[in-house]
Amino acid sequence: MAKSKKNEPVILITNDDDITSPGIRSLVEAVKGLGKIVVVAPDKPQSGMGHAITIGSPLRMNKMNLFGDIEAWQTSGTPVDCVKLAVDKILHRKPDICLSGINHGANHSINVLYSGTMSAAMEASIEGIPSIGFSLMDYRYDADFEPSKKIVHKIVSEILKQKKLDDHLLLNVNIPSVPYNDIKGIKICKQAYAKYEEDFDERTDPHGKKYFWLTGEFKNFDKGKDTDVFALQQNYVSVVPVQFDLTNYTLKKVLEKSKLFK
Amino acid sequence: MAKSKKNEPVILITNDDDITSPGIRSLVEAVKGLGKIVVVAPDKPQSGMGHAITIGSPLRMNKMNLFGDIEAWQTSGTPVDCVKLAVDKILHRKPDICLSGINHGANHSINVLYSGTMSAAMEASIEGIPSIGFSLMDYRYDADFEPSKKIVHKIVSEILKQKKLDDHLLLNVNIPSVPYNDIKGIKICKQAYAKYEEDFDERTDPHGKKYFWLTGEFKNFDKGKDTDVFALQQNYVSVVPVQFDLTNYTLKKVLEKSKLFK
Repeated sequence: MAKSKKNEPVILITNDDDITSPGIRSLVEAVKGLGKIVVVAPDKPQSGMGHAITIGSPLRMNKMNLFGDIEAWQTSGTPVDCVKLAVDKILHRKPDICLSGINHGANHSINVLYSGTMSAAMEASIEGIPSIGFSLMDYRYDADFEPSKKIVHKIVSEILKQKKLDDHLLLNVNIPSVPYNDIKGIKICKQAYAKYEEDFDERTDPHGKKYFWLTGEFKNFDKGKDTDVFALQQNYVSVVPVQFDLTNYTLKKVLEKSKLFK
Repeated sequence: MAKSKKNEPVILITNDDDITSPGIRSLVEAVKGLGKIVVVAPDKPQSGMGHAITIGSPLRMNKMNLFGDIEAWQTSGTPVDCVKLAVDKILHRKPDICLSGINHGANHSINVLYSGTMSAAMEASIEGIPSIGFSLMDYRYDADFEPSKKIVHKIVSEILKQKKLDDHLLLNVNIPSVPYNDIKGIKICKQAYAKYEEDFDERTDPHGKKYFWLTGEFKNFDKGKDTDVFALQQNYVSVVPVQFDLTNYTLKKVLEKSKLFK
């Protein structure tokens, strides 16, 4: 890997819960000592923002003193904007690795698409920066991140030790919310086919007009034992290698044979 | 395909440019007669929203009279929210097909990730609704959608004729901005590896503070002749079959062999 002046890797850290969340603080603490850390993260919660970018309004950045001697910036943008700003306006170079999280709440299975945490990591991967998104299966603000910090440290250390790393390496790591000793190990998995069954909560405002809250029940339709959802149920940490080429090559072959549009 | 009472397919139409855009009107006109159309689309521009969903604020919907006798609703949500609201609160069933667009501007290559048009289509595909996103390579409000309408009609007719359709069928269709007779045909393609080289436009506000506009130059790094970008350069309509399983199976095998995290 390319190294900073002091021959240590540059580690860009971001998230989607906002720069003041306990999750991002835990991520910083987990990798302290593994390289030169720079934090660039949103100034407000950006959960569920997916791969959104800000094109209709300008972006702001402010330097923050939140992590001792670690350089930190909050931006008014989405998680994807944060990665773009970090590379182009703060680091003026590609970091050696981008870490996103630790998210308050799971980002397994289909959540990879809705998650700002994973979209930030994916944006870095598109840019040719190896990248990992971390999520703890606990939505609470005061979730216990101590076991996660050990897992994060282990995974990032191993990845940084690799001599030759795929520039587009992108991992979606989910961590069960159990004591460290109850974690059975780390499993490489595929993304489960699971989704939310929507059930909008319909209410009436004081002016008599209806409004709707998006809610829904998570359902796993995937019976496979090689999925992230299955691994997490067994108290394993799930690691799903992710790609940004969304081409469905199987369907591509079928359509080519069918001559449907000839 | 399942049919409506009149034995005609139910066609859900959405977009990301907003319900009043000429692109969505052209899409409605292009498929009129092919089924029972219901339009559910955002009440404001939602370009670049990716797979964002609205969880921090409630959603509003209003019935609109914009397309003659065709049922139409505008919502305050993202394109993905529109699909969820349409299925759960308007249709109370899955439509037989979901069409998104016609987008003012290209959504080829990596744009599939940022595009609200394609995210709406992908959300439908996750829900088990065959879905197609259409984009014209012309950003202008007054772009000429007439050639696109013929292409859309041809593709949707062919898809609706199929006896057995993959519930998760998802196509990303991009149309070159040329006269109809100059379109050479329809090509099944893979997503090109192309991206934006960011170049934020830095400005100073009247109070002396900096702000940044996201800009960038599109660059195609993919030399393949089977990509969407290549096909479009040759004046073909590009059709990329898209999937929402983002697992990188090649990297999965490598990581499993490496025993990195054992």
